Amino acid sequence: MMGLERIDTPAVLIDLDRVEGNLKRAQDYADAHNLPLRPHIKTHKLPRFAKRQIELGAIGITCQKLGEAEVMADAGIDDIFLPYNIIGDDKLARLKALHERITISVTADSSFVVAGLARTFTDPNHKLRVLVECDTGMGRCGVQTPWAAVELAQQIAAAPGLHFTGLMTYPAAGKVAENEDFLEKTKAALEAQGLTPEVISNGGTPDIWHAHDVTVATEHRPGTYIYLDRFQVAKGVGKLEDCALTVLTTVVSRPTEARAIIDAGSKALTSDTLGMDGFGFIVDYPDARIVGLSEEHGTIDLSGSAKKPEIGERLRIIPNHACVVSNLFDTVTLISGDEVVETVPVAARGRVG
Amino acid sequence: MMGLERIDTPAVLIDLDRVEGNLKRAQDYADAHNLPLRPHIKTHKLPRFAKRQIELGAIGITCQKLGEAEVMADAGIDDIFLPYNIIGDDKLARLKALHERITISVTADSSFVVAGLARTFTDPNHKLRVLVECDTGMGRCGVQTPWAAVELAQQIAAAPGLHFTGLMTYPAAGKVAENEDFLEKTKAALEAQGLTPEVISNGGTPDIWHAHDVTVATEHRPGTYIYLDRFQVAKGVGKLEDCALTVLTTVVSRPTEARAIIDAGSKALTSDTLGMDGFGFIVDYPDARIVGLSEEHGTIDLSGSAKKPEIGERLRIIPNHACVVSNLFDTVTLISGDEVVETVPVAARGRVG
Repeated sequence: MMGLERIDTPAVLIDLDRVEGNLKRAQDYADAHNLPLRPHIKTHKLPRFAKRQIELGAIGITCQKLGEAEVMADAGIDDIFLPYNIIGDDKLARLKALHERITISVTADSSFVVAGLARTFTDPNHKLRVLVECDTGMGRCGVQTPWAAVELAQQIAAAPGLHFTGLMTYPAAGKVAENEDFLEKTKAALEAQGLTPEVISNGGTPDIWHAHDVTVATEHRPGTYIYLDRFQVAKGVGKLEDCALTVLTTVVSRPTEARAIIDAGSKALTSDTLGMDGFGFIVDYPDARIVGLSEEHGTIDLSGSAKKPEIGERLRIIPNHACVVSNLFDTVTLISGDEVVETVPVAARGRVG
Repeated sequence: MMGLERIDTPAVLIDLDRVEGNLKRAQDYADAHNLPLRPHIKTHKLPRFAKRQIELGAIGITCQKLGEAEVMADAGIDDIFLPYNIIGDDKLARLKALHERITISVTADSSFVVAGLARTFTDPNHKLRVLVECDTGMGRCGVQTPWAAVELAQQIAAAPGLHFTGLMTYPAAGKVAENEDFLEKTKAALEAQGLTPEVISNGGTPDIWHAHDVTVATEHRPGTYIYLDRFQVAKGVGKLEDCALTVLTTVVSRPTEARAIIDAGSKALTSDTLGMDGFGFIVDYPDARIVGLSEEHGTIDLSGSAKKPEIGERLRIIPNHACVVSNLFDTVTLISGDEVVETVPVAARGRVG
C-alpha cells in the first residue's frame, strides 16, 4: 500500500475507519430510538458513502440539488428526498425525469411552488410526493405558521398529480423544544382537517443526539455527521479524533519566527468561520492558529505554539466546515490509518442547479 | 440569439463588453505609463481571456498554481510567471516539464525552495528563471529585509541551472510608498553586489491606478481588474457598471414580508466578505442586503428596500469577490447585453495543486 507521503498537496483525505465509526454510531442511536435516518449527501457527495449509509439502515438519502439527485440516481439510489423549492421549466422537467425512474419527494413553502409542481405532475396514478417546509426557527425557507402549512397542504392535496406527504424542517440548532412545538401544532391542525402527515422530516447534525426529543418526527436528516468538522466538535457532536476529513497541506514558507504559510487557502479550506476564530484546526499543532486565507495561501500564527513546523513539512487540518471543502476538490483520497486506499472523483461536486 | 431567460440558475454571467472595457482601460493606462502588464488569470481561469489580454498588449500571464499553468500552456500561452514556492518532487517534475515547452519563471523566498529548484534544474544552457519574493508589507510569503533578498539572490545566481531574474511582491493594498521603498532599497543592495534585477514584478488590482507610482517596478500583475467586483468598487477601482461577472439567481421563497431566499448560497457566492457587510450587491435591489448564506440558500433582508422581488423572479448579483466565484462553477455563460453568446467550461477551475 502507498503511504500518505505520495499524495501531493493540497489534498482532501477521508479516513474510512472514522467514516464507518461515525455512520455506525449514528445508525445505532437511530435504531435505539426507532427514528429512521435519511442522510444528507451534501457533505460527502460520493455514491459509495450514500450506498453505505443505506446498507447500514438509512431509509433513503437527501440531496439539496437536482444535479446531486441525478448523480445519485445514476449510481443506483432509488429513494431520494429533495427538500427544495423546485422552480422553472428546466428544473421541473428534470424533476419529472427523475420521478419517472426513482421514488423522489420534494418540498414547497408557497402556492407559487405548488402551482408549478401541479402543472408539471398531473398523473393521479403516479403522484409526486410533496412535503410542506416549515420555518420552525431557522429563519430561512418555510411557512411561518401551522395554519399556513395547513393551507398549503390543502392545495397540494387538491392537485390530482401531487400527494401531500408531510412536513419538513431544517431547525435552528439548539432549539429542540421550539421545533417540536411548531411541528406538533401543525400536525394537530392538519389532522383536524383530515390531512395526516405520513412523514415529518427533521434535520441537522448539530442536534443529532437530541433528535429523539423531537418525538413528532418520523425521520432525521443528518449530513455532516459522516465526516464531522471543527464546528461540530465545538458544538460537542463528536471529538477531534472522530473527524474523518482532513486537508493535507505543505508549509511553503516560514517568513518569520511566528509565521508559517501553507499551500491551502480559501480555495481549499473556504472562508467559512461559522463564528469561530480562525480557519481550521492543525492536528499536530493545536496551539497554532490559521489566522488568514488568500485563495492559495493560508497564514498561520505560531506565536502561541512552542513547536513550529519547518518549510516542506506537511500538516493535516480539520476544516471548520467539511461540506464546503468537499465541494472544492475534484477528487478526494480515501485512507485507512496512514495508508492510501484510493483516490476517487467527488461525483456530485459542483452541482449548483 | 438566446436571451438570459433561457439560462437556468444559479449561473455565472460574464459580460463580454465590460470585460473588453476593463481590459482596454488597464492596458491604456499601462501603455501611457510604459509599465507592462502580466495579468493574473486566477480571476477568469479561461484561456480565451488570457489570449485576449496578450493580444491587447500584456507581456505574458501570471498563474498561481502549476495546474493553472499547465492548462494555459496547453492552450498555447508561452510565457507564464508562477509566483509561488514550488516544493516537492511531484511539483518540481511538473515544473520541469513546463520549462521544457514554454518560458516559465517562479519565485523563491527561502534557501529550502532554492535548493529544490537547484537540484531539479541543472542545465546551464536552459536555466530556470527565478525571482525572489519580497514581503513589502502584505505579511504573507516573502523575505523580510533587502539583505535577505540579496543573500537569496546570490544563492540563485550560484546555481548552474538557475537564473536570478529579479524581485516579486504582492503588496499590501494602499501601501504604495512602503512597497516602493522596500523594492528600491533591495534593488540598490543587489546592484552593490553586482546582481541586477531584470524584472521587478508588482501586483494587485486594488492599487492598479497607482501602479506607476512604484517607479522601480518593471511589470504589474493585476487579476480582478478583468471582472471587478463589489470589493474593488468599494475600493474605488471601478464602478458598479463596470462589473463584468454577475451571479444569476432565482428567488425561491418569500417566507416573510422582509425576507427573500435565493438559490445562490455559499456554493455560488462564497463566504468571502473581505470585511464588507453582506455577501454581494443585488443589481436591481440596491437597498436589499444579502445577510446570510447556507450552502444552497442565500437570505436577503428586504426591510430597507421599498421594492421587493417576487418568488420566481431572477436577480443578478455582483459578488464580493469575483475570483472565488469563478472557481466554484464548472461553466460560465458569456453574454453581450441581455443576449447569451456562449456557455464555456472554466478550463483552469479547481486546479488546487
